[in-house]
Amino acid sequence: MNVPGREINPHISVDCVIFGFSTNQLKVLLIKRAHTGPSGKRIKDHKLPGDFITINEDLDLAASRTLEELTGLKDIYLQQFAFFGRPGRISNRVDIDWLNATTGHEIQRVVTAAYYSLINITETNSDFAIKNNAAWIDIQQVPDLAFDHDTIIANGLKHLQKTLRNEPIGFELLPEKFIIRELQSLYEVILGCALDNRNFRKKILKSKYMVQLEEKQSGVAHKPAYYYRFDRNIYEKHKKESLGFNF
Amino acid sequence: MNVPGREINPHISVDCVIFGFSTNQLKVLLIKRAHTGPSGKRIKDHKLPGDFITINEDLDLAASRTLEELTGLKDIYLQQFAFFGRPGRISNRVDIDWLNATTGHEIQRVVTAAYYSLINITETNSDFAIKNNAAWIDIQQVPDLAFDHDTIIANGLKHLQKTLRNEPIGFELLPEKFIIRELQSLYEVILGCALDNRNFRKKILKSKYMVQLEEKQSGVAHKPAYYYRFDRNIYEKHKKESLGFNF
Repeated sequence: MNVPGREINPHISVDCVIFGFSTNQLKVLLIKRAHTGPSGKRIKDHKLPGDFITINEDLDLAASRTLEELTGLKDIYLQQFAFFGRPGRISNRVDIDWLNATTGHEIQRVVTAAYYSLINITETNSDFAIKNNAAWIDIQQVPDLAFDHDTIIANGLKHLQKTLRNEPIGFELLPEKFIIRELQSLYEVILGCALDNRNFRKKILKSKYMVQLEEKQSGVAHKPAYYYRFDRNIYEKHKKESLGFNF
Repeated sequence: MNVPGREINPHISVDCVIFGFSTNQLKVLLIKRAHTGPSGKRIKDHKLPGDFITINEDLDLAASRTLEELTGLKDIYLQQFAFFGRPGRISNRVDIDWLNATTGHEIQRVVTAAYYSLINITETNSDFAIKNNAAWIDIQQVPDLAFDHDTIIANGLKHLQKTLRNEPIGFELLPEKFIIRELQSLYEVILGCALDNRNFRKKILKSKYMVQLEEKQSGVAHKPAYYYRFDRNIYEKHKKESLGFNF
């Protein structure tokens, strides 16, 4: 985005892959790109929220700044996961024209630093995202994307899935008390596959940081399930003593 | 390194953090940097094997190329782990002078893509490394480093430790048959802490891919220990069925 008085570093950009979880769906936050090329051809596709860094701007701060400017999302914890620097990644005529038109620079090679985050859509101000030409798109229905943003999303998803298998990031997306079925759904949605109910239950209940509450579901047609909570203190204690070997 | 006819991209570099495991030691591969500054002052310190990428060079290939040119190490699997782009990371006068002298460019801001690898020192041709001004330095005794290379190494070590806890990368550094005590030493050396013998044994023996052999140690003063081997097939099968939850 060409803001007057803001000098960009035309060699380095940042891109944010923001995954949004809502009941039974995993979405990704995309920006609509509508632009008329030099030939008068109208371009309509999507891109990740991202931008060139400015001169003297820290990469992490550039990622937060860009995300807020383009989508309105603030105070999101962004995690670096990879950089993308294939020499030919900006070779599509549409992308070159768009960069030249929006930045006023002859852009050549750009290495982009990619960040990801996983948030609960219901807890974020999704109105603001909509105001800013941003949209939550189902991960299974991602449309045509600019540059190599399809590769960046695919890579970001792999990182998210790996993190979900190794760290308790899932609990932050659930209510404080939840039933095991809700936790399993979250894993299924993010991992993109069905999981065996019995195995899931067995494995998750082995972990000492899953604390069963006395309260059960009420008003359900089936046998009511117990609520559980995630105990971060037990987890931190267990983690210190643990060696891992989750391989 | 300024090679005639090789045009560099002065905005982006690669750096390689090569960890070397040898019995009871973790080392890192460093390059000696000796240079006389414009004031005539002699600079002697160390840096990571790294270089600017050239125009049109892929980042991953630039990392392999640089490592081979500077240390002689070939065919090493290099894993991206982070990028470092703090605006002030090249602000030390010595570093600025050295970059100008070695590249012939007025270098300003550089974002570096960092890669790491873990190799068995005894299995690599360490002679070649020594010929090329490279040296294996004990991770506990890393001397003064150029740029922000201390931060890059510290960050690389964290990534290595995390990977060791979550993936079976340790076995590749041991002989095909090994005793549990050898495996524990490897974990202790890389994690940089002593581990409880009983807990380690209990945890590692739970994993189905550790196969006990019939053979025991011979010619030892203490009670001979059984040899084990790592079964990658069992591991791959287990991994497919596994959900992780190693948190």
